[in-house]
Amino acid sequence: MIEDFIHVSITSRDLERSIRFYETLGLKAIKRFGVVDEDGIARAFRLPKGRLAVAYLAASEAQGRMFIDLVQWLDPAPEGEPYAVPNNVGLNRIAFRVRDLDASVAEMKAKGIAFLTEAPQDFGPGIRCIVTTDPDGVFVQLIEGL
Amino acid sequence: MIEDFIHVSITSRDLERSIRFYETLGLKAIKRFGVVDEDGIARAFRLPKGRLAVAYLAASEAQGRMFIDLVQWLDPAPEGEPYAVPNNVGLNRIAFRVRDLDASVAEMKAKGIAFLTEAPQDFGPGIRCIVTTDPDGVFVQLIEGL
Repeated sequence: MIEDFIHVSITSRDLERSIRFYETLGLKAIKRFGVVDEDGIARAFRLPKGRLAVAYLAASEAQGRMFIDLVQWLDPAPEGEPYAVPNNVGLNRIAFRVRDLDASVAEMKAKGIAFLTEAPQDFGPGIRCIVTTDPDGVFVQLIEGL
Repeated sequence: MIEDFIHVSITSRDLERSIRFYETLGLKAIKRFGVVDEDGIARAFRLPKGRLAVAYLAASEAQGRMFIDLVQWLDPAPEGEPYAVPNNVGLNRIAFRVRDLDASVAEMKAKGIAFLTEAPQDFGPGIRCIVTTDPDGVFVQLIEGL
């Protein structure tokens, strides 16, 4: 049975662009696999082929071994768009813990990161969050106090 | 800047059905919030309202504090479908660590869980995985050896 989380996989149209974005937020590319033919992954998902470029992204102060499995599919090619609204059924958004949200948001804005709202929003006692989207449009939520 | 992962949020059409599925895989509902009006979340995502039922699901042997933020949106109502293929751009799949994959798969099959392939697939030295989908269709990957 399940022991622990391993990763969430983000399908990206441009691996390097996504790595730059997540590194700007403070994550780190801990592994890069280049382009690989993953026949086992292809079979597991019942795809004819599985040619993909992969990088793992970890958080600097992570307590677990959780990472983002960032994947740029080459064959089959990436298709479709991320969910446009948080109420779209599916794996909809990813949330990260941030110690000082105001300082982090200021620092990220200075580096060109745009947020859905001007300022963080309260949503519980001492809990605040703000939302951005990654270069493909994936919702990324930064939370303080949870 | 980002410290650690907090959660991935899954938008579900039926909270209780999803809880039963993830509990069958070995996760545990560690918090249930019932139906809440989350004006802060609504504002953070620029929605007119945010009425939702929420539960947190954790892994039994988790090293971090990572959880699934399972959300059944009531207003706005859930819409759309999860990605049908792993090469759809977006937050595409979630992966869990399993110690004994064959035994876990047998146990899960006995409880009615269906997998995309009959048996696990190899995809690296000593690494094996198998894929199932949650009741809404979200890709859930079980991995041994990573």
